[in-house]
Amino acid sequence: MTRLRTVACLLPLAALTLAQSPTPQVFGYRDFAQQAKLDKAFMAVPDPALAGQHLKTLTAAPHWASSPEDYATAVYVADKFKAAGLETEIVPFKVLLTKPVKIVIEAFDATGNKLMSGPTPEHVDPNKFGGDPFQDDPRILPAFNGSSPSGDVTAEVVYANYGTLADFQQLAKLGISIKGKIVLVRYGENFRGIKTYIAQQYGAIGVLIYSDPADDGYFRGDMYPKGPYRPETGVQRGSVQFLPIYPGDPTTPGIASTPDLPDSKRIPADKLQNNQPSIPTNPLSYHDAAPILKALGGAESPREWQGALPFTYHLGAGGNHTEANKVTVHMHLDEDIALRTIWDVIGTINGTDDSQKDNWVVAGNHRDAWVYGAVDPNSGTAAMLETVHGLGQLLKQGWKPKRTIVIGSWDAEEEGLIGSTEWAEQHEKILAHAVAYFNTDVGVAGPNFDAAAVPSLKQFVREVTKEVPSPKGGTVYDQWKADQNAPSPTRKRNRSSESTDSDVRIGTLGSGSDYTPFIQHLGVPSTDIGSEGPYGVYHSVFDNYNWFTKFADPTFVYEQQQARVFGLEILHMADADVLPYDYQLYGKEIVGYLEAAQKLATTKGLSLDFTSALAAANRFATAATAIRAVQSAPPANPTGLNEALRNAEEALLNPDGLPKRPWYKHTIYAPGEFTGYAAVVIPGVNEGIDAPDAPRAQAQLAALTAALNRSAAILEAAK
Amino acid sequence: MTRLRTVACLLPLAALTLAQSPTPQVFGYRDFAQQAKLDKAFMAVPDPALAGQHLKTLTAAPHWASSPEDYATAVYVADKFKAAGLETEIVPFKVLLTKPVKIVIEAFDATGNKLMSGPTPEHVDPNKFGGDPFQDDPRILPAFNGSSPSGDVTAEVVYANYGTLADFQQLAKLGISIKGKIVLVRYGENFRGIKTYIAQQYGAIGVLIYSDPADDGYFRGDMYPKGPYRPETGVQRGSVQFLPIYPGDPTTPGIASTPDLPDSKRIPADKLQNNQPSIPTNPLSYHDAAPILKALGGAESPREWQGALPFTYHLGAGGNHTEANKVTVHMHLDEDIALRTIWDVIGTINGTDDSQKDNWVVAGNHRDAWVYGAVDPNSGTAAMLETVHGLGQLLKQGWKPKRTIVIGSWDAEEEGLIGSTEWAEQHEKILAHAVAYFNTDVGVAGPNFDAAAVPSLKQFVREVTKEVPSPKGGTVYDQWKADQNAPSPTRKRNRSSESTDSDVRIGTLGSGSDYTPFIQHLGVPSTDIGSEGPYGVYHSVFDNYNWFTKFADPTFVYEQQQARVFGLEILHMADADVLPYDYQLYGKEIVGYLEAAQKLATTKGLSLDFTSALAAANRFATAATAIRAVQSAPPANPTGLNEALRNAEEALLNPDGLPKRPWYKHTIYAPGEFTGYAAVVIPGVNEGIDAPDAPRAQAQLAALTAALNRSAAILEAAK
Repeated sequence: MTRLRTVACLLPLAALTLAQSPTPQVFGYRDFAQQAKLDKAFMAVPDPALAGQHLKTLTAAPHWASSPEDYATAVYVADKFKAAGLETEIVPFKVLLTKPVKIVIEAFDATGNKLMSGPTPEHVDPNKFGGDPFQDDPRILPAFNGSSPSGDVTAEVVYANYGTLADFQQLAKLGISIKGKIVLVRYGENFRGIKTYIAQQYGAIGVLIYSDPADDGYFRGDMYPKGPYRPETGVQRGSVQFLPIYPGDPTTPGIASTPDLPDSKRIPADKLQNNQPSIPTNPLSYHDAAPILKALGGAESPREWQGALPFTYHLGAGGNHTEANKVTVHMHLDEDIALRTIWDVIGTINGTDDSQKDNWVVAGNHRDAWVYGAVDPNSGTAAMLETVHGLGQLLKQGWKPKRTIVIGSWDAEEEGLIGSTEWAEQHEKILAHAVAYFNTDVGVAGPNFDAAAVPSLKQFVREVTKEVPSPKGGTVYDQWKADQNAPSPTRKRNRSSESTDSDVRIGTLGSGSDYTPFIQHLGVPSTDIGSEGPYGVYHSVFDNYNWFTKFADPTFVYEQQQARVFGLEILHMADADVLPYDYQLYGKEIVGYLEAAQKLATTKGLSLDFTSALAAANRFATAATAIRAVQSAPPANPTGLNEALRNAEEALLNPDGLPKRPWYKHTIYAPGEFTGYAAVVIPGVNEGIDAPDAPRAQAQLAALTAALNRSAAILEAAK
Repeated sequence: MTRLRTVACLLPLAALTLAQSPTPQVFGYRDFAQQAKLDKAFMAVPDPALAGQHLKTLTAAPHWASSPEDYATAVYVADKFKAAGLETEIVPFKVLLTKPVKIVIEAFDATGNKLMSGPTPEHVDPNKFGGDPFQDDPRILPAFNGSSPSGDVTAEVVYANYGTLADFQQLAKLGISIKGKIVLVRYGENFRGIKTYIAQQYGAIGVLIYSDPADDGYFRGDMYPKGPYRPETGVQRGSVQFLPIYPGDPTTPGIASTPDLPDSKRIPADKLQNNQPSIPTNPLSYHDAAPILKALGGAESPREWQGALPFTYHLGAGGNHTEANKVTVHMHLDEDIALRTIWDVIGTINGTDDSQKDNWVVAGNHRDAWVYGAVDPNSGTAAMLETVHGLGQLLKQGWKPKRTIVIGSWDAEEEGLIGSTEWAEQHEKILAHAVAYFNTDVGVAGPNFDAAAVPSLKQFVREVTKEVPSPKGGTVYDQWKADQNAPSPTRKRNRSSESTDSDVRIGTLGSGSDYTPFIQHLGVPSTDIGSEGPYGVYHSVFDNYNWFTKFADPTFVYEQQQARVFGLEILHMADADVLPYDYQLYGKEIVGYLEAAQKLATTKGLSLDFTSALAAANRFATAATAIRAVQSAPPANPTGLNEALRNAEEALLNPDGLPKRPWYKHTIYAPGEFTGYAAVVIPGVNEGIDAPDAPRAQAQLAALTAALNRSAAILEAAK
């Protein structure tokens, strides 16, 4: 028998406008009416002005992970958690971080004339369009790529477009070798670490990654401070860790880097090649990259490699390339690579239902930033603090959740999802029972709500957004649906669209944010939400409070919206009678993935047997349809049902993990080995086909079949 | 009984390599074997080196229509015609031409600072990549737009993308008026005269048309003289006549501008508004346009309006536009608009079959150029002279064609198809019996063969190209097919692709070259052929012999190919037993056009009755299928059959012409009122629907129905 939820009568409901229309029924609730009242009480709390204050405080100084300023933000967040009534602790980890000491990038033509000498500090004209009040802070680190080794290399340059696998393959097809060369690539299309991952496999000795104005500069729109796009000297920092192999502290895959962890348990610095690049990599602005690119001779680049700089892009090799037109780059990176302390902040609201309280609802956002991080990540942090503010008000009014709620403010996400991964590895055992992980990273970059989720939570996210009003009128859901035909031109994360169902599209979870350890390592059903817009200053000095209040959300109403949606996700998952997982859609999508993979295998001429896998997927889909009916008319005591629902996702993990990257255990979703951000579905199978490696693909089909059968059996047994 | 063709035995066949495979049967011939031998004898003649000499001579000086240098090219062509044994005359016409006296374009910011002062002469660095040996000739006219009136206007500037109807409509939708403004548009998408045609309807007082590097400059590839694309100062000249209303001498629509035509038969200068713009228009290089465009304030342009210049394009209005950021342009155009003499060269080979000789086979190419015109048009002229060379050799060997062959070297095409139109209007009566007009304009801009044709001649063109070897190996047809998936990025003429049949795609005849008076005014079945490539110097000083031999065809082998294909078109049409028209495909395409129009009408909510038109189209298609069988097994005397075949095309003319533009009489094809180059199919109907104007569309459906029934009746009666 389920606990009678009488808590709502303790709320001061007079202050709320009750919905005129009858309360809709929401999946997971026997009767949604009480929850609807609670939701309204919650939604009244998150405050735009307070969110603005949080943001201003959090982004007052550069707060790179492990810095004193980073610690100050941890204390601020912990104070807010405590004030709201959460059990709060600051949890330190000791992790390997790269900090730049000195960066020199210079280029020369064949006669030794200097073409450029950099990197040029990020700077805009202080006398135009209000300038930028944050750009001159001496605490700003030079623009660098986390996880790059130190290095001092001099070599000719080859341009390789976005540095995707296809780009490097095309160079090889054109007879151009990058062996011993420095590769100049532009940001976009894949995770930057993948650019280095492939370049070093092809023999490059250094990588420069620049921001082409075609991708986030003047070609997209006016540049900061006139508009929201990346200015001439703007640089995108970022980690080049080999994220698709494993995230987190490079020295401790699978275990937590607690401060007391003995060195003997860590991988030594010279054995980190699975996760850390062996060649130096550094980012550049287009101001610094243009003189190099312009001077390159050799063959014209393939025309689709042309960016928006005002000259024809050449490869620096092939065609009429001679000694006389060679361009040489000297990269000298001096990086201080050391174990440093980072600080997660963890706040807990204990659940009250004995049968459910160990089934945690986890929600989180990272706090560390490359520089100021107004959008990435502190727009998410500010909103999360207002979510916590709302939860605190409910607590004060006597509410207690059925399931335990854990809120994480992660550190060192930028270096490779480190704070979240270490914490998740530390709590692996109890997280095996966690019912959801709700992530937000870029909480607000503009007015367009977007989400990615496991299929079982897509309907859940849609339902939540139907409750929250949009500043544009109607609900977040209404606007989300309306906006979908005008997607944001620049997105941090690739939330590739799925169209298995005809409702508003929700992306697939790849990687690039903190949901990865939860869903892909531990099998915790996850979502990732945020509100997007034209955001060209990603990972630069200019992602600061001035930019945010000019271009993202001047009145913080999208901050409020974000706090509300995030909060309702937490509240619904904490209190639902029956876990609102939609395995029916999940089953449908998996069958679709397998059919697509079968076609791909045929196209590639691979002889693979999909019979058992398809049978298992159909069995899973059938069981999912049956359990969906049970969820809609649940038994008096749903404990067993909920346990089965939760275990069905965990059963999709393969304990052996993926080939070459055992840390990734989920059989349905992983970041692609050659994409990083973007998900590869049924990754073992599809990457085996792509290789192409028929025996590997067949073995992965077997592992997938086993997982699907395990999961189906759990659903079949549930009542 | 058909005439026994014994002429082939007079040929010196020993010199020819006979095909190893059996002679294919070709549509139109009872037995193709004799023709195949003649074709081979012909194909042995066109000579790359001679074509190169023709080109060098023809393009030695700027030879703008009516200039002494233009006359010298007429004499050269006439001499070659005569040498080949053609009856030759130089035919003068007296036509209205615009010649620039003085052009001033300058721009100022709000404080009166000069942003640019032009136009800048076209010039490249003489010390880089060999420079350009032709650019400093004092006879080069300043870059101008033919048919622009004189004017002295000063106004604010609005950017309007390509100046299509959709672009101007979008500005209006954004609340931006161009009334009293100077509009800055870029070349591309439509015929340039249409940009002015629409701009003046919207109230603009001047138009500047510039070449954006996105469209034919560095974004496409290396700029001249390093590569084939338009350099910084390169300008596209060109006529802004309202070509879709009528082409030819503006003062004499429908009649020939013979030198003795009294002025009383001409439209006076102040009554030419149907065909001549009332607002000044001038072209610009991006060197001159960039400072204007860069200075524009106001709203950001729609993002698809962004070109490849290195800043964000703004509209110059809307958004935060104020007096303080206004950009003012002063255009002062002093044009000398006067009747001038031009010279067509006409060469004739009389036909010998009494029943057929009045059924002319006409072939032509224009000779006048904006400056040197190495590609446009003299690559076509050089090839045509080698075609004539080949025909001359056949004549010397005793061959005589069944039908009369007329070769035209047209003048003043660039000003509005004037030489061809006046000549066609002069010979309207006998051209009513002409069996074909074969056009070439840009004969060779590169190695990729392409063609446009009426549907009845698509198969004919394909068959001809199957006989001609390609310099790339195989036949022209083979390479054409292979190339179709890699189309040339810049095309002068829009040869929009049709996909009614699955064979190699052949475009639809719109306008922009000399086939227009033949097919669209007189109903002579036409084709247009040429060989394309990366050609960024269209209508500039740099379209010269230096560019041509560096980038288009250094060894003139594509000139030879072009001469051969053009020649075989003429030979086959002159000697075919049965006219090789494929009305079956024509019928299929017309039915398709009607079905598409019906859908469009439904989408637009127009209530139109298509019943009779569809019935007529199906009747035409049925008759076409029947006649195709007769053509394959023709009667002993095919005279009547041939007459019917010829008359069936002419029957598709509507004597009343199109609404607003009665000169255009073809019911199936016309240049679009708002496209110019690109064809609109069943134009009366489709433009009625587009307007939308249901009564007009219904009336045009009736006219089309009548034409189709007339044509079907002719085919049905043929035996």
